[in-house]
Amino acid sequence: MADLISGNAAIGQSGGPTAVINQSLVGVIEGLKAGLVGSGQVKKILGMRHGVRGLIAEGDDGLVDLSAMDQAKLEAIARAPSSALGSTRDKPDEAYCERILEGCKRHDIRYFFYIGGNDSADTCRIVSEKAAEAGYEMRCFHVPKTIDNDLKENDHTPGFPSAARFVTMAFMGDSMDNASLDGIKINVIMGRHAGFLTAAAALARGESREAEEPSRYHAAHLIYLPEVPFSTERFLADVDAVYSRLGRCQIAVSEGICNEKGEEIGPQLAANAERDAHGNIQLSGTGALGDGLSDLVKKGLTPEGGKAPRVRADTFGYLQRCWPVPSTVDAEEARAVGRHAAELAAKGESHASVILVRSGNGTGYRSACSQTNLSNVARHTRHMPAEFISGSNDVTEAFYDYCEPLVGELPRFGRL
Amino acid sequence: MADLISGNAAIGQSGGPTAVINQSLVGVIEGLKAGLVGSGQVKKILGMRHGVRGLIAEGDDGLVDLSAMDQAKLEAIARAPSSALGSTRDKPDEAYCERILEGCKRHDIRYFFYIGGNDSADTCRIVSEKAAEAGYEMRCFHVPKTIDNDLKENDHTPGFPSAARFVTMAFMGDSMDNASLDGIKINVIMGRHAGFLTAAAALARGESREAEEPSRYHAAHLIYLPEVPFSTERFLADVDAVYSRLGRCQIAVSEGICNEKGEEIGPQLAANAERDAHGNIQLSGTGALGDGLSDLVKKGLTPEGGKAPRVRADTFGYLQRCWPVPSTVDAEEARAVGRHAAELAAKGESHASVILVRSGNGTGYRSACSQTNLSNVARHTRHMPAEFISGSNDVTEAFYDYCEPLVGELPRFGRL
Repeated sequence: MADLISGNAAIGQSGGPTAVINQSLVGVIEGLKAGLVGSGQVKKILGMRHGVRGLIAEGDDGLVDLSAMDQAKLEAIARAPSSALGSTRDKPDEAYCERILEGCKRHDIRYFFYIGGNDSADTCRIVSEKAAEAGYEMRCFHVPKTIDNDLKENDHTPGFPSAARFVTMAFMGDSMDNASLDGIKINVIMGRHAGFLTAAAALARGESREAEEPSRYHAAHLIYLPEVPFSTERFLADVDAVYSRLGRCQIAVSEGICNEKGEEIGPQLAANAERDAHGNIQLSGTGALGDGLSDLVKKGLTPEGGKAPRVRADTFGYLQRCWPVPSTVDAEEARAVGRHAAELAAKGESHASVILVRSGNGTGYRSACSQTNLSNVARHTRHMPAEFISGSNDVTEAFYDYCEPLVGELPRFGRL
Repeated sequence: MADLISGNAAIGQSGGPTAVINQSLVGVIEGLKAGLVGSGQVKKILGMRHGVRGLIAEGDDGLVDLSAMDQAKLEAIARAPSSALGSTRDKPDEAYCERILEGCKRHDIRYFFYIGGNDSADTCRIVSEKAAEAGYEMRCFHVPKTIDNDLKENDHTPGFPSAARFVTMAFMGDSMDNASLDGIKINVIMGRHAGFLTAAAALARGESREAEEPSRYHAAHLIYLPEVPFSTERFLADVDAVYSRLGRCQIAVSEGICNEKGEEIGPQLAANAERDAHGNIQLSGTGALGDGLSDLVKKGLTPEGGKAPRVRADTFGYLQRCWPVPSTVDAEEARAVGRHAAELAAKGESHASVILVRSGNGTGYRSACSQTNLSNVARHTRHMPAEFISGSNDVTEAFYDYCEPLVGELPRFGRL
């Protein structure tokens, strides 16, 4: 390890938190302790408070020394949902990355680990380039995380399986609730550009999915993904068909559904749109899309002079990403990707994005960590592949095979 | 048991479903099998489809014969959330109860069990009186159920502990999410007239509640109950005080908060109010109150010429009552109240409302079933007692003591 630079390591967490992002934080720490700390290259392990904000902060307030934390404390933090170090929505540009580099120099940081989505991979990429240009030797590693499951090169991303498990469990319970009182139920799911999380509603079907025709006891009769152009006319016709036949209809809708022109439906229905720092309109944390669709259905499906159907909408909101009971597979994999990043550093790699690959499905499910160039992940968005999408409102068998091992075992219930 | 009438038994489920209402259904069936079926008084055990609707339906479509169902199937149904028989929002008046009585006569029903809230107790009361007037011998039993926990005479009601557990777990995760990204988070909780479920947010505080001052890691800094008149001015001042000090603020708000005049805040903020069959404005299944409060905070706390704080609102919605992982205590007690109703019938009681009473708290928590007159429960609403409410935005130690044994053990997490 003669070619390894000596200095401090810094770890940050960025973007929307997940139920297992602290597993990755602890994974990096474990990996460093077993490798570069033991061999003397890494002196201090520093946590960035609120991601790169902690690095550009004046003084030492933005960093916390994690070097001496004992294993019991680390395990307790690993189990906690949401970013223990704090997160940030800042999306660093070139100028911002210069300031990050300055921060790294100030604190003698030579190993930079950033847990996040494609924006975080891009931050790693720019910082890595800036460091090289400046002749400051630094190693930059991106650790994948996102409930949207929208990172390229990855079979799936840590955070997604736990969020998918929440969505599946929610649809299981909610479907029985809807069947108890009948009517039309719309549930709005996170995931602006990628429909994986919305698609997880299909897993709530259990045995009912083998029936030739969706029954009363089906869960999520209709699934609307952001990858499939959304037509309000077709939506009303779909809902009408199910509701007329079964007296009820449970619907999964992605917050990011778009019309044929690629314009989002949410903002069209929302009275008060708000843009975040990335220029995106805020869809999470408001019930506007669900309430708008609910009004649409009430108006569209009320017979002339007749009674409006019972229509309810829930927006699952932040619970999807912070529910404190994760998928077991997810917790293990999130720890593994963090550890793998530290191992890459110990091997002398200079920069990489850790990725998850799969071997085997069903009961033979296995995953492993690998790596790719930061630029293969940075800024790109992965969508639901065509083989997972069935028509305009459903998923395929291939999606079940893909998603089931991630979500883990589900409770089974009896019906009359 | 010479004085026991012979005939069929009918069981129905009414009102909003809960995570454990099928435990009560199976409890009644078990109790009947062990008692009146074994002794020959009860011939068939009939389930009413969609509550009393099933009884007034023409033909036999509204009833399902549960007599021959085996124990494994019953256990699988007991574990399922939401009313397996289907539910109804119908609130029978005198004329409707006449039709129920006709249905009972038509199907030779002599034992009537109705699982529900105070409206269901009232249905039992009226049907029982009508039967007596008509000289038709019938036994009527109300089995308590409601996530709102608003039934008189009961220490608490089956359904509430599971919903409270969901709310507590949700606030635990959501508080960490809010702490990760800062800002103001509003969560709207079910319970129109009784604040018990909203108050359960306080249990998410864990050890932080022992701190002298609420910290960053407190969960639910502010709790607004329907029992305490809500002032928008005071609300804004409360939020401002917490947010200014901690940079974040997590808030629990009951869907039923009212101003000093007793007028609900939700409909004032909601553009599209809808009334249900009971004349209530629909608050669940829309994000209107949360979004309205969110706007209020954004407008009220944006400094002149400055940036609006990050404000998000989630309406927990139907997941509160149908999340498929119940509180263990709740599942057991819901089974017990059902069984107790059948035992009262076997003892020759003619009508009663089963109630839950408590002996001991904390690790010494115990509950038992007892009974009261139907009229003591029918139509009344129980509110949070004064001893559980602290000031205008918090709960007392007495509430923790009351609620903790119901919710059960909670996960514990580490923090930096």
